[in-house]
Amino acid sequence: MAINEESAVLAANRAYYRAFERGDFDAMAAIWADDEVSCVHPGWPALVGRRDVLESYRLILANPDQEPVTCDQETVILGNGVARVLCVESVGGASLAATNLFVLSGDGWRVTHHHASPIALRVERGGERRLN
Amino acid sequence: MAINEESAVLAANRAYYRAFERGDFDAMAAIWADDEVSCVHPGWPALVGRRDVLESYRLILANPDQEPVTCDQETVILGNGVARVLCVESVGGASLAATNLFVLSGDGWRVTHHHASPIALRVERGGERRLN
Repeated sequence: MAINEESAVLAANRAYYRAFERGDFDAMAAIWADDEVSCVHPGWPALVGRRDVLESYRLILANPDQEPVTCDQETVILGNGVARVLCVESVGGASLAATNLFVLSGDGWRVTHHHASPIALRVERGGERRLN
Repeated sequence: MAINEESAVLAANRAYYRAFERGDFDAMAAIWADDEVSCVHPGWPALVGRRDVLESYRLILANPDQEPVTCDQETVILGNGVARVLCVESVGGASLAATNLFVLSGDGWRVTHHHASPIALRVERGGERRLN
């Protein structure tokens, strides 16, 4: 059950990035929850509410200079009908840390929050840290 | 009830920043949940697990060059025994967008995730956007 839930959350996370990859605004709108949504794009202040969040994606997906965004290194944390996916986005040669929150609705897991920010610090094994 | 819950979440959010302000590692450790915790400090990759997250705070709070961190413009989004606070942190003259996640445990609301990133983009009324 937990494994199936984790697979379903990962599938929803992939759907988010697939919508990005395809510049598919309708698919992006469908993967976001109906309410209680918020978003922090890299370098942006927080956007609150479905209307403002989707308008930001409309602009981003329509931008011809937008670099492709891919995602790997997913970690899923599940509980209470909500899920958190931490992953690393690759955008134009840069790495970003992303927090994606999902809620389980009648038609599956949908995004309620996205927060992405550039990674400037490398964390080495053993606790050593240095700037890239 | 909802108002009381929101007040309780905001109090937990303030407790997080008060621990930061006082450099109080014990208070910071107490405000974090026992498990399923994760954290993205500004410019950092995601840290997963209470041990790694608290070790990062131990280093940050012990750093004599750490600028004070304050928080305002809180927005609370509540549901399913979890809560999300979006707020603006002020650190050394810079503004950061923060996502703070809380879970309701036996002894109140505790932090399960923190993600903060510098704000480089100003969003004007009417949808006009420009870089600071």
